[in-house]
Amino acid sequence: MNETEFVAALRKLPLHPGARGLEDDCAVLPVGGETLIITHDMMAEDTHFHRDADMADVAWKLLAANLSDLAAKGAEPLGVLLGYSLGSSDARFLAGLDEALRAHGVTLMGGDTVATTGTSTYGMTAIGRATCLPVPSRTGAQPGDAIYVTGPVGRAMLGYEGDEEHLLAFNRPVPRLAEGIALAPLVSAMMDISDGLLLDCWRMAWISGVTLAIESAAVPVAARHRSGECMRWGDDYELLFTAPEAARLPVPAIRIGTVRSREHAPLLLDQTPLADPANLGYRHG
Amino acid sequence: MNETEFVAALRKLPLHPGARGLEDDCAVLPVGGETLIITHDMMAEDTHFHRDADMADVAWKLLAANLSDLAAKGAEPLGVLLGYSLGSSDARFLAGLDEALRAHGVTLMGGDTVATTGTSTYGMTAIGRATCLPVPSRTGAQPGDAIYVTGPVGRAMLGYEGDEEHLLAFNRPVPRLAEGIALAPLVSAMMDISDGLLLDCWRMAWISGVTLAIESAAVPVAARHRSGECMRWGDDYELLFTAPEAARLPVPAIRIGTVRSREHAPLLLDQTPLADPANLGYRHG
Repeated sequence: MNETEFVAALRKLPLHPGARGLEDDCAVLPVGGETLIITHDMMAEDTHFHRDADMADVAWKLLAANLSDLAAKGAEPLGVLLGYSLGSSDARFLAGLDEALRAHGVTLMGGDTVATTGTSTYGMTAIGRATCLPVPSRTGAQPGDAIYVTGPVGRAMLGYEGDEEHLLAFNRPVPRLAEGIALAPLVSAMMDISDGLLLDCWRMAWISGVTLAIESAAVPVAARHRSGECMRWGDDYELLFTAPEAARLPVPAIRIGTVRSREHAPLLLDQTPLADPANLGYRHG
Repeated sequence: MNETEFVAALRKLPLHPGARGLEDDCAVLPVGGETLIITHDMMAEDTHFHRDADMADVAWKLLAANLSDLAAKGAEPLGVLLGYSLGSSDARFLAGLDEALRAHGVTLMGGDTVATTGTSTYGMTAIGRATCLPVPSRTGAQPGDAIYVTGPVGRAMLGYEGDEEHLLAFNRPVPRLAEGIALAPLVSAMMDISDGLLLDCWRMAWISGVTLAIESAAVPVAARHRSGECMRWGDDYELLFTAPEAARLPVPAIRIGTVRSREHAPLLLDQTPLADPANLGYRHG
């Protein structure tokens, strides 16, 4: 199976109501008068990082990816659990995790450590507290809403290619936790951009039952002459959100388009319908 | 690093107060008026299962191992998140997970799925609700307490060896959730036996600052002529606990010894001091 097939099969198992049908990045769990947000992200050698990568960066990104999911829910992190495969760079991994936890003011709650014989796979579970109800989801984009991103896309791509100016954007991405908390009360839909702006726009439109019309000239990109690539590369961890046109945004964000009633294609890029999510971004598995 | 060294290094990172110094199997997180119990367990190919194992059994055991950690805290499961590496037996894994979730009345809350190039590693996070405060830990065994197990050890060993009568004990272990909830209000210390009775007794004694004196003739074993092996094999998922001698137990359990003030060795087996945890059970990494 590929990832899409496997997740489709998972949806036939007994699901928790807070799983949101496995359509979202996080589970939403009301507990004791609070609402918890819970997410689990993995990074696998060869798939998510090269074996010669600095494991300190991998540890940083593992935490960042999890916290970015919390950010998209406007959640405040409470702690993380680590699932770790012992390998040859354990000390570097620990150093990077230490830096990342301290940089984001997050603490380790537990986890598991195993010996493995093959490539390394790391998992992390992050637990956060919702700061705003209802918890933002991917599903609420409404016709007429404006579409925004919190910052430029393509920086991670340039960093991956070795561009000195953008190395940190690739190796040490910063999840938009404060922005997510500030935006949560006024967004109609929100998600983090992990697999490419266009693909994530397509997904938000699909699940919201609307069409997102994006103006490429308005999209903030790290390299204007490569805007198509910047809009398809992932790992930028900016937030994508929709909000009523009249909403006054509490944090800087760039408007990139407008939500329309569902047309044939969930996505319009400069008026061109893009019905097929293939080639819009990074697809796993 | 091996697992012990890695966990020691993890203890120097910023820890959540609910992490209990990473000395326990679960994190304890007060949320609103409730207390959550959170655990993460992994299973890795070659380390925890053979590549020709039925992945339906592996999925079952992954859930059972996590729920067994909740059982030792007297927690009621709320849901689980799955971290899954795609492989060649995805359909079997899904079938086993489906059976296990339904058998235990547990639901899937979320997770992540990745493609990997090497051996498979599976992770699961289980979240439960404490039914009793304070939440039982490994640390509270008191001199004079009686020591109990909820059932025989060594069944999983015989099942692993192919003994028809005990195949299910190895392939489809049942976590002692109901027993854990019933026992939680009266135990002084509790943990599940995952790495072997003697090793886990040694660990409970060490962290409680006492000595556990075990009478081997009293230990319920699946094969009396191999009692030493039965007491050192893991995967039985019975609960080990201590309680005041006068406590009236709400569920069947077998007394196997008495807690003493700390002597030179944390463990006495038929009066023989066992100071070194080596050779007492299964040690990872």
